[in-house]
Amino acid sequence: MEKTTKILLSEKEMPTKWYNIMADMPNKPMPPLNPKTRKPITPEDLAPIFPMELIKQEASTERYIDIPEEVLDLYKTYRPSPIIRAYELEKSLGTKSKIYYKHEGLSYAGSHKANTAIPQAYYNKMEGVKKITTETGAGQWGSALSYACQHFGIDLEVYMVRISYDQKPFRKMMMNIYNANVYPSPSNRTEAGRKILEQHPDSPGSLGIAISEAMEIAAKNPDTKYSLGSVLNHVLLHQTIIGEEAILQMEKAGELPDVVIGCFGGGSNFSGIAFPFLRLNLKEGKNIRLKTIEPASCPKLTRGKFMYDFGDTAGMTPLLPMYTLGHNFIPAEIHAGGLRYHGAGVLASQLLKDGLIEATAKYQTECFEAGIQFARTEGVIPAPESTYAIAGAIDEARQADKEGVSKTILFNLSGHGHLDLASYEKYLSGKLQDHELTNAEIETSLAEIS
Amino acid sequence: MEKTTKILLSEKEMPTKWYNIMADMPNKPMPPLNPKTRKPITPEDLAPIFPMELIKQEASTERYIDIPEEVLDLYKTYRPSPIIRAYELEKSLGTKSKIYYKHEGLSYAGSHKANTAIPQAYYNKMEGVKKITTETGAGQWGSALSYACQHFGIDLEVYMVRISYDQKPFRKMMMNIYNANVYPSPSNRTEAGRKILEQHPDSPGSLGIAISEAMEIAAKNPDTKYSLGSVLNHVLLHQTIIGEEAILQMEKAGELPDVVIGCFGGGSNFSGIAFPFLRLNLKEGKNIRLKTIEPASCPKLTRGKFMYDFGDTAGMTPLLPMYTLGHNFIPAEIHAGGLRYHGAGVLASQLLKDGLIEATAKYQTECFEAGIQFARTEGVIPAPESTYAIAGAIDEARQADKEGVSKTILFNLSGHGHLDLASYEKYLSGKLQDHELTNAEIETSLAEIS
Repeated sequence: MEKTTKILLSEKEMPTKWYNIMADMPNKPMPPLNPKTRKPITPEDLAPIFPMELIKQEASTERYIDIPEEVLDLYKTYRPSPIIRAYELEKSLGTKSKIYYKHEGLSYAGSHKANTAIPQAYYNKMEGVKKITTETGAGQWGSALSYACQHFGIDLEVYMVRISYDQKPFRKMMMNIYNANVYPSPSNRTEAGRKILEQHPDSPGSLGIAISEAMEIAAKNPDTKYSLGSVLNHVLLHQTIIGEEAILQMEKAGELPDVVIGCFGGGSNFSGIAFPFLRLNLKEGKNIRLKTIEPASCPKLTRGKFMYDFGDTAGMTPLLPMYTLGHNFIPAEIHAGGLRYHGAGVLASQLLKDGLIEATAKYQTECFEAGIQFARTEGVIPAPESTYAIAGAIDEARQADKEGVSKTILFNLSGHGHLDLASYEKYLSGKLQDHELTNAEIETSLAEIS
Repeated sequence: MEKTTKILLSEKEMPTKWYNIMADMPNKPMPPLNPKTRKPITPEDLAPIFPMELIKQEASTERYIDIPEEVLDLYKTYRPSPIIRAYELEKSLGTKSKIYYKHEGLSYAGSHKANTAIPQAYYNKMEGVKKITTETGAGQWGSALSYACQHFGIDLEVYMVRISYDQKPFRKMMMNIYNANVYPSPSNRTEAGRKILEQHPDSPGSLGIAISEAMEIAAKNPDTKYSLGSVLNHVLLHQTIIGEEAILQMEKAGELPDVVIGCFGGGSNFSGIAFPFLRLNLKEGKNIRLKTIEPASCPKLTRGKFMYDFGDTAGMTPLLPMYTLGHNFIPAEIHAGGLRYHGAGVLASQLLKDGLIEATAKYQTECFEAGIQFARTEGVIPAPESTYAIAGAIDEARQADKEGVSKTILFNLSGHGHLDLASYEKYLSGKLQDHELTNAEIETSLAEIS
């Protein structure tokens, strides 16, 4: 039989609905709380910062939500994304298992973030929003949203974590190409930023701080809304296009995966590929393992605590029931910037609590090694974030070989690493180190919020 | 009718033969000459530097040449490449014309160069070659060949133009990830390099010098061959996979292009998309315009002379009958590094001489403007080289609107610009300038070789 490397879908085969895991969860998540009243937040609480359609999606229990025509049109510039059989990686491992990856790095800005950037910009546009603010770490999210806002004619103001703004200028350049305004955070444009700069004029910033700044601007300006690239229910919802496509593709390949793997920051790329497969477990009695890989230096799922916590540093978000390391936790400066977040999305947190998904953690040097092996065999240079998923897939293949079985492994390649080559250079020249996080550090951080 | 954005081919539909334009040219090109004897070169002359199968392809007049199975397998990791209808660009231009682009930027190293890197490494491997040397400018070619050599277990030594090596470290990092050894050129590893360094210790290097260095190493070591990324007949042959796919895709779309456009450095990406369409002109009476866009600062096709000249600075290559600015010509430092070459491939040169293809030149600022417009509408950030093709496509659309007609325009997007963001930043901040090349400069350069 002829060898098939890529499993493609035509545009006509592209799913037209997002899947809402909330409909099928055995235990619904606890409600987000208004931090002032400690009562469940209402749509009105969120109205100053999000458009109503996204607020509805945030709380929806409908199983499927239609993807608007204009969003589908833009999805079609880069979707459906291929699933690729990693023959060369398999060969280099000498494994009997099959390894497939869903390649989300082919989108305009190079990652899965486009899948939610487009609908978020769209719904804002539909409600007459003139300007959006957002945060970004290394810049994957900011660049994805920049193009989406440019497309729908919305101004975008990006608060970029200062240390990334200074050290990794390329994502900022990409955002500029897409016509966005990018400011290093903490900035003197907000109260939250000024307060931090007063105490720490040299603050390197953090995602939590940048979220506070972006939310503050949105809260104060009636024609401005705020947009978040992970964590929230509606973000995870939009990402399920990945898994919905993947199910159709694996059907074409004539097999179901034994395990589906994604790296884990706030939860959006993992949830995007995993939730539709979880539906097969919950509704059709399948038994597909769903496995997250998080950085050992930011281990909210494996070493954090399930509790109510803020999503940002200044405490502007609702209180969310989630696995967290505490909203003041500052992760070590690993190169997978997109995974350096203290908390996990509410949906993924509840599912982990209920034993429906798995959590593992890895150090970055092992992941870079996996990334190099992947690049040298498959050709594709992965984003540092995605190397965690690759390392997880390699583990599964090795374990299967030990057990003398052949597994079908599917992982999500969340993005390419074209703007992260300097991190690889550091790894190759032996300059990367792993950070050993002590229990005391975690306990201290959690104690501050208990 | 539902809107279709991408025209895809399945792997089964991928062409399995390259097309050799030599079979159908009304006037065959004049032979390359041995510079010492001034007689046509023989296979034996080339045997020290190329494997025999590529030497045969270089002189072949067979119309179709089978693509080896192992090359097809590796092509399938990124091919067939999509043709995308540039709806958003069309909208922003307000044009009645249809603009399609063939997206070659989705390959592992981000450009069309992979299409010839893979077979070149393959044929070398088949003949027991242990090491390959090559030159690279900005690094697109070097990175494409690095992965191909790694795949086939061949060592690769890359001579990278010094100024790019120093100023653009990212392609070098990419080559290192793919396990290649990269040296700045001129280097002290070769006679050619040492000679130049003696006279000009601070030489910024040039493609011509780097070719001399790489060829010298190959000529002196029996188990080492040399590999070139453009210009030569066999390179252009391998690139015809682009146009062969494009013909099938345009048939699916139910239309033939009125004009096919490619940027022009040595000729490989243009020839790759154009030659198969030229076959339709020559054999089936079609009348498709085939249009090259070269930099106004390196205008061999529009202002050079058709004559025998060397492909490198030190005069190590055969003498080639081509449009040239003289092999000592040092182009201005424009940001489309891949287009900074003094000569044009023999096949493309002959076809231009015979009026079968068209040549135009453009300044880089106009092309960057087109690149920005493309990025903001289509989302894809093009390589600086590819912006020339985009500017050419925009011209065609505007001209058609002036004439009140609708054209079908197809251009080749030869690569992405993820590693060229600093050039865009320079353009956006107004720091890019155009270089006005005088006739006297060209005459002086040509006089040196007449």
